[in-house]
Amino acid sequence: MALTPARTMPGVLELLPLDQIAFQRMLDTIRRNYERFGFLPVETPVIEYSDVLLTKTGGETERQVYFVQSTGALQSEKSAEGVPELALRFDLTVPLARYVAEHERELSFPFRRYQMQRVYRGERAQRGRFREFYQCDIDVIGKDSLSVRYDAEVPAVIYSVFRELDIGPFTIQLNNRKLMRGFFEKLGIADAEQQMLVLREVDKLDKRGEGYVRDTLTGEGFGLSAEVAQQILDFVQVRSSSLQDAYDKLDALGEGPEAMELGRAELKEVLGLIHAFGVPETHYALNLSIARGLDYYTGTVYETTLNDHPQIGSICSGGRYENLAGQYTKSHLPGVGISIGLTRLYWQLRDAGLIDTAQSTVDVLVTQMDPAQLPAYLAVANELRSAGIATEVVLEAGKLGKQFKYADRAGIRFVLVLGEDELAKGVVTVKDLRREDQFEVARSELIKTLRVELEQAAVMG
Amino acid sequence: MALTPARTMPGVLELLPLDQIAFQRMLDTIRRNYERFGFLPVETPVIEYSDVLLTKTGGETERQVYFVQSTGALQSEKSAEGVPELALRFDLTVPLARYVAEHERELSFPFRRYQMQRVYRGERAQRGRFREFYQCDIDVIGKDSLSVRYDAEVPAVIYSVFRELDIGPFTIQLNNRKLMRGFFEKLGIADAEQQMLVLREVDKLDKRGEGYVRDTLTGEGFGLSAEVAQQILDFVQVRSSSLQDAYDKLDALGEGPEAMELGRAELKEVLGLIHAFGVPETHYALNLSIARGLDYYTGTVYETTLNDHPQIGSICSGGRYENLAGQYTKSHLPGVGISIGLTRLYWQLRDAGLIDTAQSTVDVLVTQMDPAQLPAYLAVANELRSAGIATEVVLEAGKLGKQFKYADRAGIRFVLVLGEDELAKGVVTVKDLRREDQFEVARSELIKTLRVELEQAAVMG
Repeated sequence: MALTPARTMPGVLELLPLDQIAFQRMLDTIRRNYERFGFLPVETPVIEYSDVLLTKTGGETERQVYFVQSTGALQSEKSAEGVPELALRFDLTVPLARYVAEHERELSFPFRRYQMQRVYRGERAQRGRFREFYQCDIDVIGKDSLSVRYDAEVPAVIYSVFRELDIGPFTIQLNNRKLMRGFFEKLGIADAEQQMLVLREVDKLDKRGEGYVRDTLTGEGFGLSAEVAQQILDFVQVRSSSLQDAYDKLDALGEGPEAMELGRAELKEVLGLIHAFGVPETHYALNLSIARGLDYYTGTVYETTLNDHPQIGSICSGGRYENLAGQYTKSHLPGVGISIGLTRLYWQLRDAGLIDTAQSTVDVLVTQMDPAQLPAYLAVANELRSAGIATEVVLEAGKLGKQFKYADRAGIRFVLVLGEDELAKGVVTVKDLRREDQFEVARSELIKTLRVELEQAAVMG
Repeated sequence: MALTPARTMPGVLELLPLDQIAFQRMLDTIRRNYERFGFLPVETPVIEYSDVLLTKTGGETERQVYFVQSTGALQSEKSAEGVPELALRFDLTVPLARYVAEHERELSFPFRRYQMQRVYRGERAQRGRFREFYQCDIDVIGKDSLSVRYDAEVPAVIYSVFRELDIGPFTIQLNNRKLMRGFFEKLGIADAEQQMLVLREVDKLDKRGEGYVRDTLTGEGFGLSAEVAQQILDFVQVRSSSLQDAYDKLDALGEGPEAMELGRAELKEVLGLIHAFGVPETHYALNLSIARGLDYYTGTVYETTLNDHPQIGSICSGGRYENLAGQYTKSHLPGVGISIGLTRLYWQLRDAGLIDTAQSTVDVLVTQMDPAQLPAYLAVANELRSAGIATEVVLEAGKLGKQFKYADRAGIRFVLVLGEDELAKGVVTVKDLRREDQFEVARSELIKTLRVELEQAAVMG
């Protein structure tokens, strides 16, 4: 039989076990922090009805959807017009909207959910673009209304997550869409479409420089006055260095129309409360350039960046939206949430050398020096496992040196040897492959000793 | 705008948060036990190339496959013949084979992996049939060879998992395909196809009774002698009540051809070692009726049943196979593994009243008695979260009674009240909604007290 080449499609991140362990630890850390803040788990099916998925989205997203057909459907739908009945979710927000609308009467509001699952996009194959990736989302959904105070809680969760992920200093950056809208109105740019076009130009500041952007804004296409262009450039370059500085810079924007005043008031309340939520002033700042998706967010918007790795871009983004599920229900469901695209983040951190391959989840390997003593080895393994120590036993007979090599290659740090000597003396030899060291310990002290070693290893690396 | 009905397709299990928590706890328990035995995590993409997925499988499985097409592929493949390029995995075994073949040179053998992900089958919509469900698999893969001792380790993992899942007494049942094959050869039924047809009839014993099966086997289709039919019926009804009884019953089968002797020797070694692995004799038994998929397993086969709920059928099955990935690589990769179909198991256990809705993952709700005191409430929440206590703070102003009702409905047991009195006295009122009780505790003692309460709640329910 001819062999089929074993391969996966481009745009997926499949990891070797030790990398998978590192990835899993990040997932666990995120989940633990989401739960600590009182968010409840939700999982939804990967496959949704196409009409449910595609109610709201524009052409861009639609082109990236993966459709799903069983063999039967494939045959009967082959000649039919239109899209197949089923598709893979492309984010967790649309499924959340569907979930909340479907189960509305069984949920308690404000509904606080976290969801950490994979999503699918038919992206063009390209380095750093993923067709399958994890999103780790939280959202708080209110019924009819939701206090702006929840907008201040979200950064506290972000802070807690990234502090524990321990990937270097970071800053949670905030803006407010009402403030932006009001500011543009004040400048005479009232049309939302036009505001978006301006913001898209402004987004090129880092790459093209201020001169280029100013020329474009005052050029034929936009036709803004030099003064207005400068005001826009000044606005989007506002960053704060402390809470008081943020208040001062918001005040310095001058008076504006209602939307601007509303946005400023919200932003001030949120910035102050974030501090009360325990986030140090060093870890959040005003950044008036942040816009996010113009058609979705309506109030507070967030981005989070690593201070030492700005090129990675935002590692956690989100904001406040006016109504979650208008396409499915007449209930008014305002919400606020964020998303961590963990697959991409992991890939970027590894690329930047910020993540190591993990040690194995296997704490200890019990070697097999003498096949006749296997029951003794199994008894030791049982004891260790009962004490919560992850233990593998070598079950194939083989040279001890080969067994050590296996442990080393598999990333298992501690190896136990029980030869004739050890068994006679009631001791165990513990080899620490990392420190290239070994010591004997009384059998009765083994669990205690290993626990200390493993705790030290977890702290010291 | 007309509303789109919010709904999911039939054959998926979408849970409300408190049920999701119960489900997640089962996943966590399984994972913890898999890791404790030294299995390493692997995740593979949901989407695989169709030619990779469908190399080995027959028509039955092929008809149940979900194919995947991006919008672009849908248009260009529409008129093309044949199957689409991509499909959703229908189990975790084929992806494991592909993974091991693809990464062979980077893995250490024996390769011990666990994988807990969802799989997809285009099943007919029917109660208890799932189109999307979790499989929780472990496998040990050897390079060139794999000691039969690993066949004895697998039941130790099963025992550890189900003991901790705490869903009632269970029995791990074992058979050996070589023993079966040899036994049939001894009876003159050497053809594998014919053996399978006989086993299929024998499978009806429980439903149709011994008389019906005997009549079929001795009838026109099979044409077996009454004596041979009786020997088959006696064989498949062998069950052991202890390790010694298992040995005795295997010996009582009489001599047989090579395959039978080989199978018997393997089974004896495995049964004895299972005991050395720490599994009590009460929890495993010989069951010579177990066959599993005839074309896949070649040695030991397992099923696990709940003693008090035989109607649920096997809750964990698997066995030994000769070569994992022959369709992708020339390497010889024997293995042994099992699978827990958790979605179906959870659904059946809940159906049988064996699983309760969980308590919330939220340990404590901090109420908002006085909006002006919000910073004090947030400070308490920060302290609790730092101590690892999952805490939600009410951020909307509202009546206290409504806040209690929210906690009750959301399954949060402990509610904190900090009114003017409490703040002045430096105490907190803790309400236990389950016991309908409340008490005051000094602020400095709050964490310690809550920890004790939560530990008690975890133990006592």
